[in-house]
Amino acid sequence: MVDIILNHRSIRKYKEKEIDGSILTQILEAGIRASNTGNMQAYSIIVTTQKDIKEKLWEVHFKQNMILQAPVILTFCADFNRFSKWCKLRKAEPAFDNFLSFFNAAIDALLVSQNVALASEENNLGICYLGTTIYNAEKIIEILHLPHGVVPVTTLVIGYPDENPGITDRLPLASVIHNEIYHEYTSEDIDQFYQEKDNSEFTKELLKINNKETLAQIFTDNRYKKKDNILFSKKFMEVIEKQGFMNNAD
Amino acid sequence: MVDIILNHRSIRKYKEKEIDGSILTQILEAGIRASNTGNMQAYSIIVTTQKDIKEKLWEVHFKQNMILQAPVILTFCADFNRFSKWCKLRKAEPAFDNFLSFFNAAIDALLVSQNVALASEENNLGICYLGTTIYNAEKIIEILHLPHGVVPVTTLVIGYPDENPGITDRLPLASVIHNEIYHEYTSEDIDQFYQEKDNSEFTKELLKINNKETLAQIFTDNRYKKKDNILFSKKFMEVIEKQGFMNNAD
Repeated sequence: MVDIILNHRSIRKYKEKEIDGSILTQILEAGIRASNTGNMQAYSIIVTTQKDIKEKLWEVHFKQNMILQAPVILTFCADFNRFSKWCKLRKAEPAFDNFLSFFNAAIDALLVSQNVALASEENNLGICYLGTTIYNAEKIIEILHLPHGVVPVTTLVIGYPDENPGITDRLPLASVIHNEIYHEYTSEDIDQFYQEKDNSEFTKELLKINNKETLAQIFTDNRYKKKDNILFSKKFMEVIEKQGFMNNAD
Repeated sequence: MVDIILNHRSIRKYKEKEIDGSILTQILEAGIRASNTGNMQAYSIIVTTQKDIKEKLWEVHFKQNMILQAPVILTFCADFNRFSKWCKLRKAEPAFDNFLSFFNAAIDALLVSQNVALASEENNLGICYLGTTIYNAEKIIEILHLPHGVVPVTTLVIGYPDENPGITDRLPLASVIHNEIYHEYTSEDIDQFYQEKDNSEFTKELLKINNKETLAQIFTDNRYKKKDNILFSKKFMEVIEKQGFMNNAD
């Protein structure tokens, strides 16, 4: 298994080949073995294969073409709708309409998604996470008919790879690990940990294309602009509230 | 790998045996191969092995004794402190002090945690997630000296198992999967999907011990009380704000 984990690359080009139903079931069964909060399984997975729904998802996921190519799109949702319905039918009064419950449900859904990602890769499938899920969550809710108590938190594109990219670089392990307590980073630490990233050929190419002095500027000025981050923060908070997870009053 | 996933059980009793440093490194290296947002790796992992720090963590994780038994406790944090420091040292102006960035960082940390869980299990280690991490996040921040821009989102207890529990029950796969769009649950659906859980011997035993009519009542009246959910929702929102992730204003 560690081989599967170490060889992970995100795949962004897919063959037209379908995924066998029994393989998809096996992958999803692996998903739900993940640890979850109090064994409440506060999540749902929406399986999209239909062309018309894919086209709508493509639109809200910033028109990434892999969504149209890949045979299966899985939208992982924090879901306290089902559990709350069960409570009400069993003479119990559920109180999962708050931020803690939302976050617990989101954790549940995310751990399931990583099991699904790895089980897919073991079946020679490629995967790509769509971080755009939380950017346009309110439109995904519309497209997938998600009811009150349900919020999409991530999406996996799954299919047979039509490309063979290399492994993506990572910071040295030491840069993300803290022994016993958090050790604040000095300028020297940052220089050391980011040296490879700062000076790679890939970065040099990016700087040329984007006409920037540093890689960090590409992140702050192009990819993760303040204005966008604030807009999407507001929108996602509104979605959490609209779906009924912000009743934090006594 | 799917075998490892399918055989997952949470372990709550551990042997005193240490984890070899090279094994722990291998497990953590597997962790950071997980997909993450824009390859920013917006997370940190705090490795606790010292007795005095474990005792403090035991206190805030509702005094679960496995925290004192197990050799290693890993606290997974959403972390935009390191990345923002790098930006500032590279003439870039970071804007990751908002809810969107917090949630992206939390997703990153959670996917890493699941890789770590599975890589641990492949190395014959047992694991247990501590959902209590977000309940007392502000105390964990104190204990582990987490700076501005860092919020703990989950914790893994890791060590050699001193028990051999069975696999935990799960709802039928069909109950958490929706084809194409979300299909709202009817009362009949709920009855069917929860039939096994409602009627298991384990449930009957629990009802007797807790003197309750239904299993759902144990969840709503004992385990996840409205008052607690609201209290911990408020506390966790305050932590997110205090650590600098609620600057959502233009």
